[in-house]
Amino acid sequence: MFKQRKSVKDVEEGNELRPKFNHEGLIPVVTTDFVTNKLLMHAYMNEEALKLTITKKEAYYYSRTRKCLWHKGSTSGFVQKVEQILIDDDQDCIWLKVKVDGNASCHVGYNSCFYREIKLENGNTKLIFTEKEKIFDPDEVYGDSPNPTIL
Amino acid sequence: MFKQRKSVKDVEEGNELRPKFNHEGLIPVVTTDFVTNKLLMHAYMNEEALKLTITKKEAYYYSRTRKCLWHKGSTSGFVQKVEQILIDDDQDCIWLKVKVDGNASCHVGYNSCFYREIKLENGNTKLIFTEKEKIFDPDEVYGDSPNPTIL
Repeated sequence: MFKQRKSVKDVEEGNELRPKFNHEGLIPVVTTDFVTNKLLMHAYMNEEALKLTITKKEAYYYSRTRKCLWHKGSTSGFVQKVEQILIDDDQDCIWLKVKVDGNASCHVGYNSCFYREIKLENGNTKLIFTEKEKIFDPDEVYGDSPNPTIL
Repeated sequence: MFKQRKSVKDVEEGNELRPKFNHEGLIPVVTTDFVTNKLLMHAYMNEEALKLTITKKEAYYYSRTRKCLWHKGSTSGFVQKVEQILIDDDQDCIWLKVKVDGNASCHVGYNSCFYREIKLENGNTKLIFTEKEKIFDPDEVYGDSPNPTIL
């Protein structure tokens, strides 16, 4: 499914899929809402996840925390239906446009993972919440499932 | 300007900026158009670039190719004016909303770096161009400047 990378011209101007996976075998993915274009999350895929996403039209990622394939929504029910997949100039980043069952993409409980704005006030940074309240309670949805976040 | 990371709760639910830079000292950045929300590019910042972006309100990145700070638009003139900066749940990704002089963000010449869609036809992938033509000629704009892309 994936072609080898040969020249800059092939990669940037061509019509063959020649994705670049990093030294960990991963490619970053930007996921946005198909209707609003709002940024929902940023994650990673390995080759298997990218192939599954292309063929199944649902978002699969690679969980760096759990070190395994991750079918988004398999625990929470918030499956991401893939409407369009794009790739960037040097083919080292994927853009997924999705529709989400339940309208939640963030394991903390918000619509988007990007629910805080960085503001600068008197030389100090502060985070301001941009989403007023959570859509769901993570404890209810995930229960004892492993928390996907580590520090 | 940046606080230390202590607990998941501090990072995900708090109002202090505690960004996570990876083993290379970098954090991924998603840059979208402030008006349309369209995804323009995906890049990386080091600590210096993030501090400059927050204080100068123009996009600074770290060029992994040239291994140096990169003030976007310093060669091309396509400076990105930063309207809003957000951070994700585990604070390991930045979202910049920008307005771009000249409306071009891609060194290949397009508005967005994501100018090709991945399509599946009869089990084979193909890239379909979604932007009809380039906004500028890279040879004219960059001349002998080093090409920011490598394979």
